[in-house]
Order: sequence, then C-alpha cells, then structure tokens
Amino acid sequence: MFRKGILFVISGPSGVGKGTIIDSVISNFSDLNLSVSVTTREPRANEIDGREYFFVPVSKFQQMVADGELLEWAKVYDNFYGTPRQMVLDHLKSNQDILLELDIQGALKVKKTMPNAVFIFIAPPSFEDLMQRIEKRGKDSQSSIETRMKSYESEMQYMEYYDYVVINENLNIAISVVSAIITAERCRYNNILR
Amino acid sequence: MFRKGILFVISGPSGVGKGTIIDSVISNFSDLNLSVSVTTREPRANEIDGREYFFVPVSKFQQMVADGELLEWAKVYDNFYGTPRQMVLDHLKSNQDILLELDIQGALKVKKTMPNAVFIFIAPPSFEDLMQRIEKRGKDSQSSIETRMKSYESEMQYMEYYDYVVINENLNIAISVVSAIITAERCRYNNILR
Repeated sequence: MFRKGILFVISGPSGVGKGTIIDSVISNFSDLNLSVSVTTREPRANEIDGREYFFVPVSKFQQMVADGELLEWAKVYDNFYGTPRQMVLDHLKSNQDILLELDIQGALKVKKTMPNAVFIFIAPPSFEDLMQRIEKRGKDSQSSIETRMKSYESEMQYMEYYDYVVINENLNIAISVVSAIITAERCRYNNILR
Repeated sequence: MFRKGILFVISGPSGVGKGTIIDSVISNFSDLNLSVSVTTREPRANEIDGREYFFVPVSKFQQMVADGELLEWAKVYDNFYGTPRQMVLDHLKSNQDILLELDIQGALKVKKTMPNAVFIFIAPPSFEDLMQRIEKRGKDSQSSIETRMKSYESEMQYMEYYDYVVINENLNIAISVVSAIITAERCRYNNILR
C-alpha cells in the first residue's frame, strides 16, 4: 500500500517554540523534508543561507513574487518571508512529505491554495508564558515585543482554521505529540494511494 | 484547554490481531476506557465474564435488543455480539475516551449512529498472512475458517469507511501507530471544548 505525499504546516504565535519543536521532529523522521523559506530579514547568529532560510535582498524577493514563484509570502515586522512553490510541489508530486514552518499569516494563505495540507497550531500554555519565552530568547527588540503582545489575541483566534492544536507547555511532550500527528496522518485512509 | 471525549472504534477482519493490539494500547493510556461487549458465544479459555465480554444467553440478548440497550449488534458466525449503549454514552458525556473493538459489521452500524467516532481499520499485510495467523491461533473450526476466507474480499472493501488504516505487519509498529492516532486525535481542533 502506497500513500500520497503530505504537506504539514506548523504554525503559531512567534516565540512559541515552533523552531525547536520542528528541529526534533525532523530528526525523528528520516523521510520528512523541511521546506526552506525565502526572507529579506538579516540572518541571526548561526543561521546559514539555504539552511534556515534563503536570505535575499528585497529586490530579488519582489521579483520572485512577480514571477509567481512563492506559494505564500507575507510582511511580518518589516521583513518579507515566502515559501518557494516549486520545492513543495516537487516533493508532493513524488509522494514525499514536506513540512513548512510558517507564521500565522502565511499558514492562512497556504490553506487557501493547499486545502489538503495538515495544519498544526503550536499554542503557548498562556500569554504570560509566551512573553517570558520571548524575553528569555533575547532576540527581539522592545518594539518588536510590543507588536507581538498586540497581535497575540488576534493570532490565537486563528486557531480554528487549524486541524490540530498542540500546547507547548513541556517541550518533549510537544515534540512527541507533533510526531504522533505525523505518524497518524500517514495512515489516514484519504492519504492512501489506490 | 479541555476536550471532548472521543469514541475510538478499532475494527478489521477477524484474526487480524485487533485484540492483541488493543491490550497494549489500553495499557499505554491510563485515561482510555475499553468498552465491554455483550455476546451469546461461549467463553474461550481464560475469558472472564465482564472483562472480555458480558456472556449472556440468547433470550437475554434478545431482550436487550428489544429494549434498545445496544448501540449496535450483529450475528457473526452463529453468535450474537452487541455494544451496551449506556456505557459508551456515559463515558463521552463525562468527556472521557472510550475504545470499542468491533467486527466490520458492527463498526459500520456504529458509524451511522456515531459519525464523530474515530474509525481505525487494522489490515493484514496480505490474505496469506491472515490465513496463517488464524490457523496458528487454532481457536477456529475448519468451517469457520472457510467462512472467513469467503468474507475477506468484501471485508477489505469496507476499508474506505474508516478514517485510518493500520497494517499489522509488525505488532510493535502497529501498536505504536494506533497509539499515535489516539494521541493525535486528542489534539484535533474539533475535539477541543470551547
């Protein structure tokens, strides 16, 4: 019995710990591909072009948008982010799974064009927990933190567009739950090739 | 965040190994209740009334049917099997999960009255594998084995009414996949109480 490739979209408020969860989940599955997004933001320390993101100048990003090369793109906190369309389609066409990490705006756009994707919302146990997490991370300016606080309520309301909600209260549990979702979706009747 | 109780229905051709899988899955989850069916068949060695089944005479079974006390019932290989309705509803009402092991006829009936249940089909890797398994088990008469062989093709066609298909090629993998389905379903957005 063979099965179709599945597009998994992992999303949630920024700072909730999506990246850390995804790093472990990807290492749990040898046959799960991670999509690499394009962004115009500056690389953070330890980020490598083509691994975390493809880092491009704004002019190049705009050209990709104009040429329809992005599955979704969005402006978040003054930077552009986008998902290369062809990479995703190529994996699905060859019945391979691919995982996207997207902010909430991006996930909602992908939902419109790829309704069969599996949407996983990573939620913080509480607003206070999310704020502590972001401050501890220390990667964000005060103004960026304030923007996040404002968008929290509206972001949480988008949960209803997702298939699954995973609360990141305990990291190891969150990792095992996301892994369980991937295992389960792989044996859904609708994903079997007949 | 609280969630609704979920009814899990595990089914598949007889002899495929449903019972063995369920024993392990139940021991993996302290908060997963196992429904106990009513049957008119004779207890096998080691079976205890009220644990594997409630063993009742045919007259009592017919009374339960007449009184609407069974969620589903079916005649399989000259015996009656049924699921006590109240036990299932009580668990769901108190937001607890309950798992039913049903033959394919029973699962299809429950699907009509409980469309929100999660239906898991346990499939053998092949017809030959299933036959070997049944013969090895040695619990079945030759005529019962022949009846099973005849019903195999039609039973496999009912797979399409299920949400998930788990192939029982390797027992430990099958157990972990069914466990993953339970974990995943518990964090589906639709099962969250709002």
